[in-house]
Amino acid sequence: MYRTHTCGNLRLSDKNNVVTLAGWVQTVRKFGAITFVDLRDRYGITQLLFGEELTKQLDENPLGREYVLQAIGIVNERSNKNLNIPTGEIEIAVSSFSILNKSAVPPFTIQDDTDGGDDLRMKYRYLDLRRNAVKKNIELRYAVNRAARNYLHSQGFMDIETPFLIKSTPEGARDFVVPSRMNQGEFYALPQSPQTFKQLLMVSGYDRYYQIVKCFRDEDLRADRQPEFTQIDCEMAFVEQEDILNMFEGLVKSVFKDVKNIDYTESVQRMTWEDAMWNYGNDKPDIRFDIKLLNLKKPVTVYTDKSDNAVLINNADFKVFDEAETVIAISVPGCSEYSRKQTDELTEWVKRPQIGMKGLVFIKVNADGTYKSSVDKFYSEEKLKAIADAAGAKPGDLILILAGAEERTRKAISELRLEMAERLNLRKKDEYKLLWVVDFPLFEYDEESSRWVARHHPFTSPKPTHIDIMINNSQVIENAAEYLKHPYANIKANAYDMVLNGNEIGGGSIRIFQRTLQEKMFAALGMSAEEARHKFGFLLGAFEYGAPPHGGIAFGFDRLCAILGGSESIRDFIAFPKNNSGRDVMLDAPSAIDEKQMKELGIKIGS
Amino acid sequence: MYRTHTCGNLRLSDKNNVVTLAGWVQTVRKFGAITFVDLRDRYGITQLLFGEELTKQLDENPLGREYVLQAIGIVNERSNKNLNIPTGEIEIAVSSFSILNKSAVPPFTIQDDTDGGDDLRMKYRYLDLRRNAVKKNIELRYAVNRAARNYLHSQGFMDIETPFLIKSTPEGARDFVVPSRMNQGEFYALPQSPQTFKQLLMVSGYDRYYQIVKCFRDEDLRADRQPEFTQIDCEMAFVEQEDILNMFEGLVKSVFKDVKNIDYTESVQRMTWEDAMWNYGNDKPDIRFDIKLLNLKKPVTVYTDKSDNAVLINNADFKVFDEAETVIAISVPGCSEYSRKQTDELTEWVKRPQIGMKGLVFIKVNADGTYKSSVDKFYSEEKLKAIADAAGAKPGDLILILAGAEERTRKAISELRLEMAERLNLRKKDEYKLLWVVDFPLFEYDEESSRWVARHHPFTSPKPTHIDIMINNSQVIENAAEYLKHPYANIKANAYDMVLNGNEIGGGSIRIFQRTLQEKMFAALGMSAEEARHKFGFLLGAFEYGAPPHGGIAFGFDRLCAILGGSESIRDFIAFPKNNSGRDVMLDAPSAIDEKQMKELGIKIGS
Repeated sequence: MYRTHTCGNLRLSDKNNVVTLAGWVQTVRKFGAITFVDLRDRYGITQLLFGEELTKQLDENPLGREYVLQAIGIVNERSNKNLNIPTGEIEIAVSSFSILNKSAVPPFTIQDDTDGGDDLRMKYRYLDLRRNAVKKNIELRYAVNRAARNYLHSQGFMDIETPFLIKSTPEGARDFVVPSRMNQGEFYALPQSPQTFKQLLMVSGYDRYYQIVKCFRDEDLRADRQPEFTQIDCEMAFVEQEDILNMFEGLVKSVFKDVKNIDYTESVQRMTWEDAMWNYGNDKPDIRFDIKLLNLKKPVTVYTDKSDNAVLINNADFKVFDEAETVIAISVPGCSEYSRKQTDELTEWVKRPQIGMKGLVFIKVNADGTYKSSVDKFYSEEKLKAIADAAGAKPGDLILILAGAEERTRKAISELRLEMAERLNLRKKDEYKLLWVVDFPLFEYDEESSRWVARHHPFTSPKPTHIDIMINNSQVIENAAEYLKHPYANIKANAYDMVLNGNEIGGGSIRIFQRTLQEKMFAALGMSAEEARHKFGFLLGAFEYGAPPHGGIAFGFDRLCAILGGSESIRDFIAFPKNNSGRDVMLDAPSAIDEKQMKELGIKIGS
Repeated sequence: MYRTHTCGNLRLSDKNNVVTLAGWVQTVRKFGAITFVDLRDRYGITQLLFGEELTKQLDENPLGREYVLQAIGIVNERSNKNLNIPTGEIEIAVSSFSILNKSAVPPFTIQDDTDGGDDLRMKYRYLDLRRNAVKKNIELRYAVNRAARNYLHSQGFMDIETPFLIKSTPEGARDFVVPSRMNQGEFYALPQSPQTFKQLLMVSGYDRYYQIVKCFRDEDLRADRQPEFTQIDCEMAFVEQEDILNMFEGLVKSVFKDVKNIDYTESVQRMTWEDAMWNYGNDKPDIRFDIKLLNLKKPVTVYTDKSDNAVLINNADFKVFDEAETVIAISVPGCSEYSRKQTDELTEWVKRPQIGMKGLVFIKVNADGTYKSSVDKFYSEEKLKAIADAAGAKPGDLILILAGAEERTRKAISELRLEMAERLNLRKKDEYKLLWVVDFPLFEYDEESSRWVARHHPFTSPKPTHIDIMINNSQVIENAAEYLKHPYANIKANAYDMVLNGNEIGGGSIRIFQRTLQEKMFAALGMSAEEARHKFGFLLGAFEYGAPPHGGIAFGFDRLCAILGGSESIRDFIAFPKNNSGRDVMLDAPSAIDEKQMKELGIKIGS
């Protein structure tokens, strides 16, 4: 061993011991005839003191930043203590040392606030990983990994590895494929998830399965997507939805406790998808703050248990509202004193192309009980008060209203809600609020391909009470424009998402486990019986031999780590990430391969 | 939840409780008006008793094998106890039941001794996995996984995920490649191991890394090889070979303890590669038994510290020995009484094409102190005694001697040694004997491509005292036939294998960590400087910025599990294995993909 201790574990109690340390030179400071060196490793930083003799040696062979140094010496109490670091009370009086390796001057500084740009740090990722800011993330990732495994183990789950070289069955995202040399002209696919395998394991009787596993999707990369990503993938047999929700909120709470020492004792709120969309405008609401939407005009989308408040805005001759598909308001606490400049700025904000609205209506609910709005011309104070009351506004609040096409308006008000919360500092970094969103629609209609697609995936079960709607109706649609009137638009799934602070961190469903229902599902998605057999024959076959009721969930491991680490970007939590073009710029991959390799595989470039 | 208990956890202490079980119907036995059903799940089997009323219901809707059944009832004490199973003292008097799913008649019986052949069981792997014999293996695999993680965690190792979509740098085995859609004409490769990444992590300062990770090699599959396989992959910084050996024999001992409850307290023997080859004829000797080889003629291979015993056989005019490249003997305990039929049978055994020898010489060391051999004509009793003494033979032993070309003879005697031990029952199933083989040659000469190849891999360091031999000599060979005389043939590596009962279960090395030495190594392997930069520029670059001394090991996880499970075949320990043609016959993968997919990827079939 090149060391007796790490650079993080010597204390005053080690005084007078002779120790050997090894690590990287963080800084070299010469004071007259003596030299101080900060030596760094994964565990910390320890100060080394080189006396006059050794300093002369250093003059001849100077140490540079990031040199790898081994030093032997005695632990002394420091006269000038640094109580900001755990080793700050001691230093090593070096008696001998050895340079284990030299270092060129790094292309950027190995510090929290580095001078390296993104591209440079990605190219030299092995140096970027030395920075404390990145190291903390990688350590946190391992802590989450460990905590998740410990919880799942304690609950009787088994880690069972599923294959990576599988069959291409693109449904939704594109597969990465792998040409087979031994079976020329044929391809394996890399798994988009172990979905069908974990279901087979349930059929096989392994009633509690998990895996922390790489998955692959060949999609055009939006910001913060990776072609390979990691899931905490879980499945259980003989369970109903409620069992899964309880088991896996337990998982996340256990991770909170182990990793962040947070006691999350309250039970996790459950919210239907309809409630989430109605009250928050999206299916992953941040519920750390209490701003809800007020739907002033019923949207065309199917909401089975909602009614609007159109009476509040109708008959006012205000064309913008009258002609809009949707009108939605939020009440922002304590902003009634916004100046004209501020409301103008908000109006510009909603008009930005990313938001895409044409304007913003506001109502100030003044502290003195009066109302002032940008639509005073159309709405009396009485009417304004009625809207404000419906929105739950209190004196001092500011009501913001957007109007326009349904989807765009809903998204815009949802963004505006988050933006206002951000401005009011209601999205606290150290507050964690979980939420289950349940009862998602089973289907979405894809107008491009004129067919139903599975909102979650084709293995998700309808809610028990909705199975008959699926079985008793054909998927065929006479008039595509009216797909919302088709009975399938009403079917809710036994599916659930776990939301943390406005981010979807996991999602799953109770699965179909009967062959006939699964066949009906494939047919509903426009798959011929032959295609279904070709792609998923093994699963349909398995369902014939005693498949138990089962369901599961998958957590986005990268995202979960990022949120727990207080970051928006998953890339910071992946040791060797790819850039937005799917390239590893450090390796320079992908890259051309030899002619010989292609010949052996029986493939050619070209289309 | 569909159950209150599993089929494995009810005991007499649960008597009179009302419980709900769910599981698979193992057997149905009707006795007059009542019916017994054995209900099975992952945890065990519980007997259900259906009374007269419910039996009438069963008559109308009979239960079949593998039906999924939910049953509610009271726990009763059995009159006819089965003490072979933990639940054998109780049964459930069923009050109501529900068939959760039916099952077709399985294509083979779900029993330890199934009637299903290999192909059928692979096709219906989800049913094969239900069999107790397979389930035990999958459970053992998880136990090994868990034990390894716990040990490594306790030693400060961090699980850090490395990428799967990397760069193709074939060196040795063939890469599986993945065409890139976003970078057409370019390919990713799947990792043959995370070797370079774990070394980068050492450069980054994560001084104790591990991963239990899938690796991929596109090789023609010999029996019991899989195109995707799993490694326990580890690396440490600031260590020397001895540190690694100690750390990882600790790992295996910890697995023994946790998984098999074996206290392996003795320290693990270390043996040089030369000793292993010299004394056992191979580099992974089974040392559960004490038969060693006696080299009667010095082989041409480089052994730096060995001398032969040719004097014992020379000058006897026995052409077979005189003309052979190698002559090797073993002494088999207690077999001197072998009959002519038995020695003839052994002679036939070594003549089989798998062994390929031309004949077998034997010397019987009789209990009365006399000697009898098949070469009495050439060797006096005195000479036979000298050979027997050198072989350490005792009265009652049988000496077997093979002669021929070096490699074949060494392999043959090594096989014969194992075969005799097998016959004498010296390879005990429940005995585990670990061994470190160290000091492997750094290079092998590949006559086909007329170049040196790395025996372990190109990142392995020569022994410190041999670095100069490498640096000060060119790799060029004037006369290929005399490559054994080249100084490179003498260089030993800082490499080590862990051997368990005659199987290599892990291997690793201390790595090169200096750019110049690594460049010299690439050159020694016949790689141009340009090629080295293209393939491994990132690693050479990393070595410029303060790479610490480091080394590591990788265990073959599948093989380790198989040996601990007492099996020769790794396939039995993989949930969804591929067959010897690399096919998943359950999925029917690999398979053709759509024209559209190929077009998107910019590739075509053909060569």
